[in-house]
Amino acid sequence: MKNWIYSVNDENNENNIVISSRIRLARNIEGIAFPHRLDSKDGKSIVKDVEKAFYNTEYPNENFKTIYLWENDLIKNRVFFDKHLISYKLVSNMDKSAFIVNDDETISIMINEEDHLRIQAISAGLNLKETFDVANKFDDLLEEKVDYAFDEQLGYLTACPTNLGTGLRASVMLHLPILSMQNEMDKIFNTVSKIGMTIRGLYGEGSKVQGNLYQISNQITLGLEEEEILNNLLAVVKQIINQEYISREKVVNKYSYEFKDKIFRSLGLLRSAYLLQMEETLGLLSNVRLGVEMGIIKDVTFSTLNQLLVDISDASIQLEIDKELSSKELAYRRAEIVRNKLQMS
Amino acid sequence: MKNWIYSVNDENNENNIVISSRIRLARNIEGIAFPHRLDSKDGKSIVKDVEKAFYNTEYPNENFKTIYLWENDLIKNRVFFDKHLISYKLVSNMDKSAFIVNDDETISIMINEEDHLRIQAISAGLNLKETFDVANKFDDLLEEKVDYAFDEQLGYLTACPTNLGTGLRASVMLHLPILSMQNEMDKIFNTVSKIGMTIRGLYGEGSKVQGNLYQISNQITLGLEEEEILNNLLAVVKQIINQEYISREKVVNKYSYEFKDKIFRSLGLLRSAYLLQMEETLGLLSNVRLGVEMGIIKDVTFSTLNQLLVDISDASIQLEIDKELSSKELAYRRAEIVRNKLQMS
Repeated sequence: MKNWIYSVNDENNENNIVISSRIRLARNIEGIAFPHRLDSKDGKSIVKDVEKAFYNTEYPNENFKTIYLWENDLIKNRVFFDKHLISYKLVSNMDKSAFIVNDDETISIMINEEDHLRIQAISAGLNLKETFDVANKFDDLLEEKVDYAFDEQLGYLTACPTNLGTGLRASVMLHLPILSMQNEMDKIFNTVSKIGMTIRGLYGEGSKVQGNLYQISNQITLGLEEEEILNNLLAVVKQIINQEYISREKVVNKYSYEFKDKIFRSLGLLRSAYLLQMEETLGLLSNVRLGVEMGIIKDVTFSTLNQLLVDISDASIQLEIDKELSSKELAYRRAEIVRNKLQMS
Repeated sequence: MKNWIYSVNDENNENNIVISSRIRLARNIEGIAFPHRLDSKDGKSIVKDVEKAFYNTEYPNENFKTIYLWENDLIKNRVFFDKHLISYKLVSNMDKSAFIVNDDETISIMINEEDHLRIQAISAGLNLKETFDVANKFDDLLEEKVDYAFDEQLGYLTACPTNLGTGLRASVMLHLPILSMQNEMDKIFNTVSKIGMTIRGLYGEGSKVQGNLYQISNQITLGLEEEEILNNLLAVVKQIINQEYISREKVVNKYSYEFKDKIFRSLGLLRSAYLLQMEETLGLLSNVRLGVEMGIIKDVTFSTLNQLLVDISDASIQLEIDKELSSKELAYRRAEIVRNKLQMS
């Protein structure tokens, strides 16, 4: 299973449009109050219990460590969030939250998120089944040591009823620039809502769409088998990919000059600007990604583009610098990072 | 005297802001109707007479040829206009007009413009006096062979009374991006009008300002000695240059990041776009020129920028291609020319 940031397959194929696949399983420990009712001391004690259970299990060829969010400042924790390794909720619970992560940063077990446990697996490309199998394996291993809160009728019990049952949230991050441009996304949003799925922005729940990146995930966790959930999501994702491809072909045929112009101007701006705000950068990166996906831009890789998605965040920039940067200084440093990363080979 | 397009001094100095200096002397032949009253046959016969007079004179080390506008199509004649070698009026009289030009394209003697003769000298940079001396020399040489229409009281007689007297129009082309940006040009325009001067766009009378390029010239030709006219113009130009420099310094000090960003973005766009309309191109070239003038951009020369001013015109582009190009095809080819010329060294 490949890390979506650092070990992306740079071959150009149909699945390029998919940035990452992510599985998250919500679990709670029997007989203990949900995290929002725990104070810092009790929360930390849960962290210790989970760690004990986890590190006593045998994980073949995997090296894990625990990150205690309370030992870090907010900036550092925000960077984990920007990498999609942890959720915003985990960050906001940082006085009592932690996560266990492997060296590859494909598995992260969040402790004291909304639920006691959020077992997450994330990988590059359209890879839902393997990603689910990995998350599932860790769920099984933990279940041997931890007494999960489970109801025969309802399934896994969770802090919020939207996660009841399987506790499974499967999501896929997609790059849909042409459907966005053609204002098709509202229609797609309405359609997928009706079949129990939802579409969100780059940073999940409540985040706005930036850089034409959309996360599509199941909304319903109860009354369906895991396999059904995955299959339904996969079918929807494939259909959306298909729609995006058809639209791309039409646009390229009708506006070939304008298309090439827009894509290479975006690359030119990223390679030359000295001030870049986040939103503009994501928009320009989306155009460049489209150019790479379509084989028009040949000297930029998907790895570079995915790494940039993380490296250009305010938190990533701020993490490297000792003093607090103004908004303009952040924009200046962001532009520097982008120029260096996209330098002509 | 250096050609303003092909042999610009690329050293960076205070006069960079001046693209070219131009002198034009209006003269008519005694006893012959002004050009607008001549039909094609009579006009062509004047051309022959002037040629005969001109080529019988001794010009040390100069090689001249005559271009008969009626032998060319409009496109080809437009390119001479784009080079500022001839006026728009000469082009519109192309059924009977011609010009004699040296190899360096610094001297052009227009025949059957608004007046029978328009002796023009044009050179790179702020170089009014030398340019005047050259034009004056050719005027003197011609006067030995041609009977000029001259009135003891009024001076040289011209088709339009605005040229009466000295028949001298001296003009300087300036690059004033910051005064333009700060909307100072209207004020300057009002001031110079009061002292008998005028400001026009890149292509002279009636043309709009593009690329922040302004032509400042004397309006009054009567009642002043040539030297006074030149001195007055020089004084005004130097003052405007000074104002532009002061404004630049202020802007750079106050907005250094934004300034660098704007300049390098413009260069980046010119180096990467696949469709460029004329107006946008001139605006971007102005930003790049500003960067070169200020020593921020180091790998672009003034020669390149001046050549581009000519090469990107519709006529120059069309001249190279056998079929008539659509507006989009012109924009595509323009972008190609710009990318090639500004390629990174």
